[in-house]
Amino acid sequence: MAKPPVSPLARPLPDLPAIAGLRLATTAAGIRYQGRTDMLLAELAAGSTVAGVFTRNLCPGAPVSWDREILPAGRARGLVVNAGNANVFTGLAGLSAVEETARAAAALLGGSPREIFLASTGVIGEVLPVHKLVAALPGLQAGLREDGFAGAAHAIMTTDTFPKGATRTARLGGRTVRINGIAKGSGMVAPDMATMLCFLFTDAALPAAILQPMLSAGVEASFNRITIDSDTSTSDTVLLFATGAAGNDAGADTGEFRRALHEVLLDLALLVVRDGEGAQKFITITVEGAVSDASAKRIGLAIANSPLVKTAIAGEDANWGRIVMAVGKAGEPADRDRLSIAIGGVWMARQGGVAPGYDEAPVVAHMRGREIDIIVDLGLGEGRSRVWTCDLTHGYIDINGSYRS
Amino acid sequence: MAKPPVSPLARPLPDLPAIAGLRLATTAAGIRYQGRTDMLLAELAAGSTVAGVFTRNLCPGAPVSWDREILPAGRARGLVVNAGNANVFTGLAGLSAVEETARAAAALLGGSPREIFLASTGVIGEVLPVHKLVAALPGLQAGLREDGFAGAAHAIMTTDTFPKGATRTARLGGRTVRINGIAKGSGMVAPDMATMLCFLFTDAALPAAILQPMLSAGVEASFNRITIDSDTSTSDTVLLFATGAAGNDAGADTGEFRRALHEVLLDLALLVVRDGEGAQKFITITVEGAVSDASAKRIGLAIANSPLVKTAIAGEDANWGRIVMAVGKAGEPADRDRLSIAIGGVWMARQGGVAPGYDEAPVVAHMRGREIDIIVDLGLGEGRSRVWTCDLTHGYIDINGSYRS
Repeated sequence: MAKPPVSPLARPLPDLPAIAGLRLATTAAGIRYQGRTDMLLAELAAGSTVAGVFTRNLCPGAPVSWDREILPAGRARGLVVNAGNANVFTGLAGLSAVEETARAAAALLGGSPREIFLASTGVIGEVLPVHKLVAALPGLQAGLREDGFAGAAHAIMTTDTFPKGATRTARLGGRTVRINGIAKGSGMVAPDMATMLCFLFTDAALPAAILQPMLSAGVEASFNRITIDSDTSTSDTVLLFATGAAGNDAGADTGEFRRALHEVLLDLALLVVRDGEGAQKFITITVEGAVSDASAKRIGLAIANSPLVKTAIAGEDANWGRIVMAVGKAGEPADRDRLSIAIGGVWMARQGGVAPGYDEAPVVAHMRGREIDIIVDLGLGEGRSRVWTCDLTHGYIDINGSYRS
Repeated sequence: MAKPPVSPLARPLPDLPAIAGLRLATTAAGIRYQGRTDMLLAELAAGSTVAGVFTRNLCPGAPVSWDREILPAGRARGLVVNAGNANVFTGLAGLSAVEETARAAAALLGGSPREIFLASTGVIGEVLPVHKLVAALPGLQAGLREDGFAGAAHAIMTTDTFPKGATRTARLGGRTVRINGIAKGSGMVAPDMATMLCFLFTDAALPAAILQPMLSAGVEASFNRITIDSDTSTSDTVLLFATGAAGNDAGADTGEFRRALHEVLLDLALLVVRDGEGAQKFITITVEGAVSDASAKRIGLAIANSPLVKTAIAGEDANWGRIVMAVGKAGEPADRDRLSIAIGGVWMARQGGVAPGYDEAPVVAHMRGREIDIIVDLGLGEGRSRVWTCDLTHGYIDINGSYRS
């Protein structure tokens, strides 16, 4: 299969400055892809803390099981990531592969194997060639450098058409700290959790017990509100590492740091939507007037996951009847005769019927653009939520009908 | 848009003999389509009984609201169906359109307007041109005939590529009775309920109170186990009319009739899958070893609704890793290490890993065929269910990206 073109919705990778206490290296380990990097090693300063959020899929990959097991200690010395093979549904071989990789990395980086986090993404059900990973580790260690983010964002890609990164700074405990994030993901992306892999690094000094609830809340407001195709990966992993090198006062007000973290997460989540397999349009769906925020979110996701809504948008058809259908199938409180729908800021349907004097022309123009805005007002209460998705096009079929070939 | 070709999975329309007590007529009322019939009138003998099952979508069309309101009386004299406009989300205009149509039909056929059932299918959110329906009714009445099933099956089609019908006979109360059914549907098809419109007619004499539970159970075992695209129509309607002309003893054992009814329903449901928009392959998914039948059904539907599973099958790729993913996202009890998967009768994955000695060749050959069989054994209990779907292809995008244009 020819390599798909870069998404028309792509955004350039921002400059991601070095994070004190962190070094990165990538290599072409030849796990599946030829002629590109496919493996990432991150070295974290002794004393680094970690938080994580993982897929809710009940058939997770071996690396997810490993990370879940070691996360409660809250300490990290390294991260090893490979693309091309997800090490999912590989039985005992998968389990021994993660243990072997963690042992080999710990021997090089110091610390315990149980401080080495792992992530794999790619094909499911094929045994991971762990000897290739282990053989590549010494070379990776030798190549560790402080400014390796652009390379790292590339090395973790699978069907992604562009690398994804985001960065923010925040004042924390008398110092300015930085948060960098990279992510990969463009299919099998749906709550709960969206992108397969997302790694965040900060020089802040914060204990795992403070990082974890902050990360969980941030993921709920970002990756859990995007969907490409309603499918949930077996490998979804978000990890936040804090090296502590900034030397800030740990007891300080964390409000600004929390906001910056949430912004990085939302940036990355929306980049994943912009790289949705075959995506030609970026769709923002705002649901208002629901009986609760949770109800609004579920209705938003029902619209975002509807193949009929997504194909209509691909066809630049302002087919709000399909939005009515999706609202009605969500299983949440809805009253046909109170429902209003706007596309591109124009109210097309008002309280159960076509809006009086509705003029289709501005909506038709909006549908031809790259960024589609839909507002649904249920007219029932104060519940509100926003979700993001992309359209469903021939490109999605092309990519997923021949992924393994 | 060019008319899509007839589905390669199509089956010929069987001969549907006349049902005593029923007459049918169709016409080209010009509601939306040009050059084809788009309206059906059915006249039922006085004393006919009726049962019905409707969409669970909370934004149903006006005809569904009407039918639900008049169904409890259990009596029917007529049925009026149009294709091309669904009369959904049309506010007060939609409500007055159904009342006007029912009144006009009752004036011609006799009986009360509340014995006239209605169904509309097609575009949502456009006002139904009720004057065209009312103007066409006298001509329809004049053309009523006893052998009109083939025409009826054609007149109710929208994006369907072939007409759908099924027939059975059964012994009931000393007589042989017949059940004929016709259906339409090829997209926006998902539980709960699948096809938009399905009409069944029998000459049996059975009260509505006996018909209704029989029909509900039959729909649960047929239309509620198929899915094309996970979308649920606002117009789904199944109606069963019994003219009583066979003169059977009503107190008789109904077992054989019930079985025949269920067979007609399942025939029609599977024909809808065979006409799934863009379908190239017919997929049967059997889930075994679940903790309950209901759990097995939900897991089966998670597989059947997964765009990644459906595109893999379109690409003739036996990508069982995506089946693992879909099992894990269903939210039902599952244990990765007990899971086994067979495609085309070949066990590819056994208890959490690749099956020992697995040979891909027969599976590759199976994937090239039109009929794909998937078995998932969860290894947990005795729960079992079967669901049906089709693949997700470029044809689906073609049809739904330009349906209104």
